[in-house]
Amino acid sequence: MKFDVVGTSPVRLDAYDKATGKSRYTDDEPLPGVLYGAIAFSPVSHGLLKSVDVSKAKALPGVVKVMVAADLGDKYANNIGAVRADQPLLAYDHLRWRGDRLAIIAAESPEIARKAASLVTAEIEELPVIHTSEEALAEGAPKLHEMGNLADSMCIRHGDVEKAFSESPIILDNRYVVGYQDHAYLEPNSVVAIPGADGSLLLRGSMQAPFYVQGALAKVLKKPMSKIRVQQATTGGGFGGKEDYPNEPSAVASVLAFETGRPVKVIYNREEDLAYSTKRHSMIIEHKLAAKEDGTITAIKVKAICDAGAYLGISSIVAERANASATGPYRSPNVQVDTLVVYTNNAFGGAFRGFGAPQVTFALERQMDLLAEKVGVDPVEIRRRNTFSAGEISPLGDVVEADVNAMRVLELAAKKTPILKELKKGKEAHIKRGIGLAAVRYGVGLHAGGQRLEGSGALVQVNIDGSVRVNIGGAELGQGAFTAMAIIAAETLGVSYGRIYVGEADTMLVPDSGPTVASRTTVMSGNAVKDGCLIMKERLLKCAAADTGRKAGELDIKGDALIDKKSGEIIMDFATLANKAYCAKVNLVANGWYAPDRKIWNKEVGQGQSYTTYAHAVMVAEVAVDTITGQVHVEKMHAIHDVGQAIHHKGIEAQIEGGVVQGMGWAIMEELVIKDGKMLNPNFTDYIIPTIQDIPEIKITLLERPYKNGPYGAKGIGEPSLIPVAAAIGNAVANALKKPVMELPMNPERIKLNLLNK
Amino acid sequence: MKFDVVGTSPVRLDAYDKATGKSRYTDDEPLPGVLYGAIAFSPVSHGLLKSVDVSKAKALPGVVKVMVAADLGDKYANNIGAVRADQPLLAYDHLRWRGDRLAIIAAESPEIARKAASLVTAEIEELPVIHTSEEALAEGAPKLHEMGNLADSMCIRHGDVEKAFSESPIILDNRYVVGYQDHAYLEPNSVVAIPGADGSLLLRGSMQAPFYVQGALAKVLKKPMSKIRVQQATTGGGFGGKEDYPNEPSAVASVLAFETGRPVKVIYNREEDLAYSTKRHSMIIEHKLAAKEDGTITAIKVKAICDAGAYLGISSIVAERANASATGPYRSPNVQVDTLVVYTNNAFGGAFRGFGAPQVTFALERQMDLLAEKVGVDPVEIRRRNTFSAGEISPLGDVVEADVNAMRVLELAAKKTPILKELKKGKEAHIKRGIGLAAVRYGVGLHAGGQRLEGSGALVQVNIDGSVRVNIGGAELGQGAFTAMAIIAAETLGVSYGRIYVGEADTMLVPDSGPTVASRTTVMSGNAVKDGCLIMKERLLKCAAADTGRKAGELDIKGDALIDKKSGEIIMDFATLANKAYCAKVNLVANGWYAPDRKIWNKEVGQGQSYTTYAHAVMVAEVAVDTITGQVHVEKMHAIHDVGQAIHHKGIEAQIEGGVVQGMGWAIMEELVIKDGKMLNPNFTDYIIPTIQDIPEIKITLLERPYKNGPYGAKGIGEPSLIPVAAAIGNAVANALKKPVMELPMNPERIKLNLLNK
Repeated sequence: MKFDVVGTSPVRLDAYDKATGKSRYTDDEPLPGVLYGAIAFSPVSHGLLKSVDVSKAKALPGVVKVMVAADLGDKYANNIGAVRADQPLLAYDHLRWRGDRLAIIAAESPEIARKAASLVTAEIEELPVIHTSEEALAEGAPKLHEMGNLADSMCIRHGDVEKAFSESPIILDNRYVVGYQDHAYLEPNSVVAIPGADGSLLLRGSMQAPFYVQGALAKVLKKPMSKIRVQQATTGGGFGGKEDYPNEPSAVASVLAFETGRPVKVIYNREEDLAYSTKRHSMIIEHKLAAKEDGTITAIKVKAICDAGAYLGISSIVAERANASATGPYRSPNVQVDTLVVYTNNAFGGAFRGFGAPQVTFALERQMDLLAEKVGVDPVEIRRRNTFSAGEISPLGDVVEADVNAMRVLELAAKKTPILKELKKGKEAHIKRGIGLAAVRYGVGLHAGGQRLEGSGALVQVNIDGSVRVNIGGAELGQGAFTAMAIIAAETLGVSYGRIYVGEADTMLVPDSGPTVASRTTVMSGNAVKDGCLIMKERLLKCAAADTGRKAGELDIKGDALIDKKSGEIIMDFATLANKAYCAKVNLVANGWYAPDRKIWNKEVGQGQSYTTYAHAVMVAEVAVDTITGQVHVEKMHAIHDVGQAIHHKGIEAQIEGGVVQGMGWAIMEELVIKDGKMLNPNFTDYIIPTIQDIPEIKITLLERPYKNGPYGAKGIGEPSLIPVAAAIGNAVANALKKPVMELPMNPERIKLNLLNK
Repeated sequence: MKFDVVGTSPVRLDAYDKATGKSRYTDDEPLPGVLYGAIAFSPVSHGLLKSVDVSKAKALPGVVKVMVAADLGDKYANNIGAVRADQPLLAYDHLRWRGDRLAIIAAESPEIARKAASLVTAEIEELPVIHTSEEALAEGAPKLHEMGNLADSMCIRHGDVEKAFSESPIILDNRYVVGYQDHAYLEPNSVVAIPGADGSLLLRGSMQAPFYVQGALAKVLKKPMSKIRVQQATTGGGFGGKEDYPNEPSAVASVLAFETGRPVKVIYNREEDLAYSTKRHSMIIEHKLAAKEDGTITAIKVKAICDAGAYLGISSIVAERANASATGPYRSPNVQVDTLVVYTNNAFGGAFRGFGAPQVTFALERQMDLLAEKVGVDPVEIRRRNTFSAGEISPLGDVVEADVNAMRVLELAAKKTPILKELKKGKEAHIKRGIGLAAVRYGVGLHAGGQRLEGSGALVQVNIDGSVRVNIGGAELGQGAFTAMAIIAAETLGVSYGRIYVGEADTMLVPDSGPTVASRTTVMSGNAVKDGCLIMKERLLKCAAADTGRKAGELDIKGDALIDKKSGEIIMDFATLANKAYCAKVNLVANGWYAPDRKIWNKEVGQGQSYTTYAHAVMVAEVAVDTITGQVHVEKMHAIHDVGQAIHHKGIEAQIEGGVVQGMGWAIMEELVIKDGKMLNPNFTDYIIPTIQDIPEIKITLLERPYKNGPYGAKGIGEPSLIPVAAAIGNAVANALKKPVMELPMNPERIKLNLLNK
């Protein structure tokens, strides 16, 4: 093997503690004198707030503080908007959704706090509710914000779409509708704000982006960032749901903490978390595709409308990825994409594994299957004819990279999976079986529009006993980031995995390293760790050279020892080397850093270097549809992934398995029911997610071709594992039923309705 | 002024919180589920431990854990010796002093824990107590350790002493005896050990050397250092007493924390702290000085015997400074110093502001006055004739540095103080008045023998709002180190003092930066902060150059803004620059480092480059002695200090005032009464320290000549402000009484005895 540690599968750093229940999540952290925060949310989806009455809440014994917007005064900024200052921390005039906060309460127990919240009343003049993004954009619709309801838009302009449509023999013009998805992480939003004696604040919590929280709190609290320290506590899942949303409970907790002088915990219950945290956007995608007789695509025109809910949040950024992902791994000389972000009174759209890509991928990949049908070739062949190769100009206007793997994963899928095989019939006639596939080209890391957030830091500390501590700006959400970092550190330093301890993410230890999203952590933080370890190794070898009288270039560290590179002779063990370096006054902390090259991007036409690199995947689904119950049973999934170089083999497999199951949930089960802006099923009895019983047989094929700028060749895996899942299942269901599938989720109700269609 | 911030006196970073009582010390830190540790100390000063009975302690309700040595098993190492493995965490056979631990207890309250400790009994065979270091060294004395009672020794061999003595007309051969001193910090030893879910440990506490504690705990707990994080909590004074001693309560708390799975606080009460923490060594100094007729010294021979108590602790290191300080700022072609460290059953000798130097300085400076008397010149003149100048070979064998200030401070003292003036008589005849002076040459930083500990790190973080966070490896003991760091950071970055936030010392943030001792923090950590800020500034200017199209060399940061160096034009404010740098993906964390040049040292003969640099001081005391009560009243002190460049002017003055008062306490009041190894006065009623009423008029003269390797020219001030105090007062008392003063403290009992002498 080329590597000593990279590509192996050591036991995850957090496995034992999580498996045995030793891990402490935010709510488990003991803290004396702690108060519990609760929020009185808006009872209406749209209205004008005339007054709030908190007298009963204040009178409740055990309530320590109740605050409404007016109580923020000049001391705090009433603005928690992540990208745009469109969202108040506490509502003061216009109520735009059920997640608006009328009052926040700190009390001696969570029960008292919630009881007090329930006693808050308000005088409200109700306004008509905007039910859909299309309603919101209709003329004469009530305006949710002064600027109107079109919150943002982005586009791609490439070639001449109208000309191509007029000249092409095949045109497929379809409308796809995809629903929301809740992240359904194990741990709901949980934070604790601990006011320091010196006016500083320590905020700990379940989150993906400690630096976002730090920035948001600095704004709300009107304090310098240096006085706000944010630490990621052990986090029970994020999936994008804890990218920006934790800013909100963090601000609530922090304001209450400063007002009361006591630590304040804000721990959402499941109902609050389902109802008020962000969701995968519901989207309407109008997809028009033109092709030649042989199926060669000549034009793609997409209009994707994202329902952002009442505030922008980071919907613009999600929409940016939807926009950039709309054409997949396919060449098209003419492209027009318009992605609209629309204000409504619905759920709060936000980040979710895949970040806008699963929605547009579903539409695109359904279109590809329809195109195959039209042309009369199989699903692999139609994709083979359109998948671009190295050196071509992509629809995003950049040259396709030399090591593009789009065709490779497609051919692997074709070779290893019976795409065309007639599936054996179920025993019972009402069970219809089908197979389908979908491809994805996933931009690893942040889009060019957000590239300022991409730089990542690491702190590497060698102790004189030879143990090593690593800290990164990225967060451990359960995805195994810290384990990957330990492997990279061990490989780089030439020591064993067991020597590496990775500490929690902390804004004080490393420079702002952006959020833990976009499948970027292995590449970005991993490169930073590698950089830090290389700096450290160079210092150690220089010191060893001085100590041994050899040349640094003749020495190496391997297998926990200083060795002679040529002969392999072991000169001293790593702990001895560390101790010698200490005595020689070598700086034993190194500050690693990585930022990819600056990308050029033209937002006006959506053209340029959109991402740093791309991962490719093809997902193949085999389903059985019960035409009596309408239930889709996913029997097999085959995931073919271009991962660069696997850092932790089992970890990659686990990520893929998770992505498949979560994507399947969105595809066939999960449906947020929203009526007049109110969520009707904020619980796991009525919002149904997959259980262990639903998990299909999952086959994984990895394409390992090292990415030149990845640490030891790694790319990201978190999101590509989910993005094509719904599309593949959708194609398999269509294949089974011989009916078009235009909506998600494909739950029994929709399947039954579908079966009624001609 | 040359500097913008350096040399000013902004309000200390911690002033407001400390003055208003907001600061939280370890015992104030709330922590649910916390247990309280207590220790059952040995009831004898010397004995053989046959068995320990903890049954009654275990039976006490509220007691959670009781441990004796056997309970440590293989899981823990029973060794808490700081320098030598001579000290068990829990006693198992030989009891060597009253501070030996028979058992440690964790209980639900401190009261229960101490009650349980009082219920521990032991079967002990008592052994004869060794009362003095001379008894210990006498033939046939009981051995406290296998190696015997001579724990360590160091020497200086320079020239031919015996020859010089045989040829010199003047010989002064005297014996000086100096007593212990307690640090009398406001906050007794206090630590809390918090076991992490993942087998890691967080130890917070009142301490001077977090890295010592980390190392000690790694040994005792048999864990990698990477899993042990030590943070210095707000600390109420150290003065050397919290250099190594906190290792002991920390180990007690940590073992109990791991055994119980709960956080454990160990908070000494005043009695425990006085009785069991380390003390300034009591010493016997045999001082023989030879001179020519004109008072030119020809030889110095010193035998300094340090009473270490039962264990070595860091007595070797203290003795090393005593050894190196024995000849002061004076030339002597022939020198022989022998410093002995001796095991006894007495109090535990350790670090204390001055670190062995005050004791030998008292002896040397008394000798100088006796020499002046003998020769018939005044005390300034005798010193003038013997103070060495640049380029000479010092008694330590190194060449006296070019910028030596020994003579400068002496001449300043002579000029500004009426050394020879006849003091006006007191109104009453029984009040005798006198004046005296003493000089010191103080090696700033660690002795060559400990130079591996000298490297120091800093973490500098610029936030995108332009606020700055700095962390150092040095500790804030109340001496103002963090304030000095903020000034250095502000000066270097070109921003205002108010932008800088200095976080607590934490082993995870910076490389092992050694202990906060030896007046080294301003120089060592200060240089590290400067280094980190320079790295950061270079990155910012490079980014600004790219942004503005100017050359980095034409730009500077001054007054919180990016400016054109030549024209002074303000280009953008600092926050804008920070934000631009962030967007350009500049690494906004820098890891500063400083280590002075390696020193060559020959321990065998005590010759070489003993210290990195030296600070010089002369202290002048005016006293009034009441010959009826025997009370010495110090009326005036004049401190003349070579400080390099003052970083914080008021801070330096405060340090000098503190040093004068603490030195005065040792000189005339403070006496630990030990009988048969047992301390009889472990309380502030019987161990008398100065109060505000006792403080003399203090005049301060600073000699500011920047030290070339100090940050902005700074040297250290913490210890030079104390070292010559007792010597100056001693000389003044001798001058008042016209009697030799050979012992400290000069308390009423000793003054009265002295008056009875002929």
